[in-house]
Amino acid sequence: MKVNNKHYRTIWMEGETIRIINQPLLPHKFEILNINNLEELKRAINDMQIRGAGAIGAAAGYGLAQAALKAKDENFFETVISAADEIKHTRPTAQNLFTIINRMLSGIIDKEQNPGDTRKALKAEAERYADYDANACKMIGKFGAELIKDGAKVSTHCNAGWLAFVDWGSALSPVYYAVNEQKKNVFVYVDETRPRCQGSRLTAWELVQEKIPHAIIADNVTGALMWKGEIDLVIVGADRIAANGDVANKIGTYSSAVVAKENGIPFYVAAPSSTIDPDCESGGSIPIEERNQDETLYMFGMDDKGDLSRVRISPAESSALNLGFDVTPAEYIKGIITEKGIFPASKEGISTILRGNHNG
Amino acid sequence: MKVNNKHYRTIWMEGETIRIINQPLLPHKFEILNINNLEELKRAINDMQIRGAGAIGAAAGYGLAQAALKAKDENFFETVISAADEIKHTRPTAQNLFTIINRMLSGIIDKEQNPGDTRKALKAEAERYADYDANACKMIGKFGAELIKDGAKVSTHCNAGWLAFVDWGSALSPVYYAVNEQKKNVFVYVDETRPRCQGSRLTAWELVQEKIPHAIIADNVTGALMWKGEIDLVIVGADRIAANGDVANKIGTYSSAVVAKENGIPFYVAAPSSTIDPDCESGGSIPIEERNQDETLYMFGMDDKGDLSRVRISPAESSALNLGFDVTPAEYIKGIITEKGIFPASKEGISTILRGNHNG
Repeated sequence: MKVNNKHYRTIWMEGETIRIINQPLLPHKFEILNINNLEELKRAINDMQIRGAGAIGAAAGYGLAQAALKAKDENFFETVISAADEIKHTRPTAQNLFTIINRMLSGIIDKEQNPGDTRKALKAEAERYADYDANACKMIGKFGAELIKDGAKVSTHCNAGWLAFVDWGSALSPVYYAVNEQKKNVFVYVDETRPRCQGSRLTAWELVQEKIPHAIIADNVTGALMWKGEIDLVIVGADRIAANGDVANKIGTYSSAVVAKENGIPFYVAAPSSTIDPDCESGGSIPIEERNQDETLYMFGMDDKGDLSRVRISPAESSALNLGFDVTPAEYIKGIITEKGIFPASKEGISTILRGNHNG
Repeated sequence: MKVNNKHYRTIWMEGETIRIINQPLLPHKFEILNINNLEELKRAINDMQIRGAGAIGAAAGYGLAQAALKAKDENFFETVISAADEIKHTRPTAQNLFTIINRMLSGIIDKEQNPGDTRKALKAEAERYADYDANACKMIGKFGAELIKDGAKVSTHCNAGWLAFVDWGSALSPVYYAVNEQKKNVFVYVDETRPRCQGSRLTAWELVQEKIPHAIIADNVTGALMWKGEIDLVIVGADRIAANGDVANKIGTYSSAVVAKENGIPFYVAAPSSTIDPDCESGGSIPIEERNQDETLYMFGMDDKGDLSRVRISPAESSALNLGFDVTPAEYIKGIITEKGIFPASKEGISTILRGNHNG
C-alpha cells in the first residue's frame, strides 16, 4: 500500500515497539500509533485502532512477541502464557487471531527452552506471520483479478483492504491487482457498513489513495443496484470460514449474498487460508460478537470545525442491538479466493485448501 | 397519536396557516412549525420537515388550499394552477401527492366557477383528504393487527408511523392497534434506515411515546436476525404501488423483502389505497428520487453539547450515490394491508382494491 506515495504496512514492529496506522482517525487524519505494552495492545484491538481479520492476527502475533521481549526471565513462561490468554479474549470472531496465537502456544512456547531463544522465536514467528499475510493477500489479488472484467462494477462490504491486513487486503486486493497490474478499468460501489462505517471511512480512503473510481452507498442501496443490474460482481472478506464453507463476516454480508444470488450476481469471499477454522463444522457455531450499542445510537465523525466528534441519532430512551458479524451459508457463495487459488465454498473445497492443493 | 399525552396530527391547518411537526428536529426536540406560503411549503417537503407518503399528500392538499386562500381574485386560476404544478415538482416518488393534487385539479378547479367557491372547495377537499388518510390508517391498523400474534417480533423499515401520515401510520398502525386495542405484547426491531435514519430518529421516537418495547438495529442487522429466526413478521410502508403490485418504498425495503422470503418470513406492505398508481404498470416505471449525496457523506444528529450538528464520515475526495427509494417486486410481498382489507400483491389484488371491494 502507498499512503501519500510512501510505502506502509498496516502494522509492523521496530525494536520492542509495535507501530500501527491509527484507524479510527481515518479518513480525517493519518497517524501512526505506538503500542508499547500488552494493555495498549488489548486496547488497540478492542477499540478497533487496528481491525480486520488479518491485521488483528498480525497484532496478536506481534503482541505476544512484545510481551515475551518485555517479560522478565524469572516468571517468563507464566507471563507469556497469560499474555496469550489475554490476547485471545480481545475479540471473538476473527479466526486469524486464534490461528497465530495457537501456533505460537503449541509450536514455540516450550518450558524446556530458555526465555532468550523463545523471545527470538516468537518475534521471528510474528514477522513470518505478517509476511505470510502480506504475500497471501497479494496472491489473492492475482487469482481474484481474473474474475474482474475490464469495465466491471464491483460491490464490496466493510473494509477488507490493506487496512484490514498487513498489506494488499483480501476483497480489495483483486481490484488493486486488476487496476494496477492489469490496467483494467474498475468501479467500486462501497457499502458504508454501518454501524462503524468501515466502508465509507476506510475502504473509500484506500480507494482515494489508489485513485480508483468509486461511490459510497448506504448499505440499503446495494440491493437496489443489484436489481437494476448495476453490479457485476461482489467480493467481500471473511473473519472466519467454517469447515463446510460457511463464512462469518461483517454484519450485512449475509443480506448482500442473498440478494446477489437472487439476481444471479457472483458473490465471492476473499481470505487467506489462515481465516479457515477447521474445528468449526458450520457457521452456526462461529461465535458472533455483540458490540456496544452506542455504535448504533451515535455516529462518530469529523464535525464542521475539524474535530472528531459524535452525534446522537436516536431517542435517549431507546436501546440498540449491535451484532458485529453475520454468517453467510456456503450455498450463497460462488467461490473462496485464497492465496492458493479459487475454491468452491463447500466441505470439499475447504479441505482442498487445507491440504494445500491449489487450482490456480 | 399522543405526544407527551396530548393528541396531535402530523399536519393540520389553522385559518390560513399550515402547522406541522418539524421532523428533522426529532427525536431531540418536539416543535410545531408554521407554514405561511407556497415557498415555505415547498421547502418543508423538499427538506423533509414533513415526509412520508401520506403526510406529503396531506401537505400537498393543504398547500394548494393555502395557495388558493392567498391568491388574489384577478389572476386566481393562473396562480392556483401554477401552485399545483410547483407542488407536483417537490418530490417525485410518493403517489399520494399526485393523487390529491390531480383530484383537486380535475375535480374542483374549474375556471367557470368563482374564486370564492373554489377556495372553500379546495380547503374542504384538503381537510377531507387528511381525514381520509387518518381514518384509512386506523383501518389498516385494525386489519393488520390480525397478522400479529401475541408475543410477536415485528421488523419495520424507515418510518411508516403517524409521522409519515396524518395520524396512526401505515406499517406501525397494526402494531399500535395490536398493543393498544388488543393488549398484545409486541416487540419491534427498528431498522435505522440510512441515510436519513427515519427509523432510529422517528420510528423509535414514536415507539417511545407509545411505550412499545423495541431495539434500533443498523440496516445490516435485519438479515442476520431473519436468519436466526428472531423476526416473525415484516411490515413496511409504501410510497407508490404499481398496478401489478410492485411497491416503491424507502431504499432498503427490497433487500429486506428478498431476505425475508428466503427465510420464509411473511413480508407485508401497509398503505392506504391512495398510494396506488393505477397508471403505473409495474415498478420499473416508478420514478426513483436521487437525493443529495451529503445525506450519505455526513451524518446529522445532536452533538454532546445538545446542538444539532453534523459529522463527516467519509473522505473529502469521495462521492456518494444516494437513491431514496427502491422497488420491491410483487412476488416478494405476501399481502398489501389497506383500509379496505388485506389483498394479494398482484394485478388482480390491486384491481380489487381499486374497485372498492374488500375482504375484511
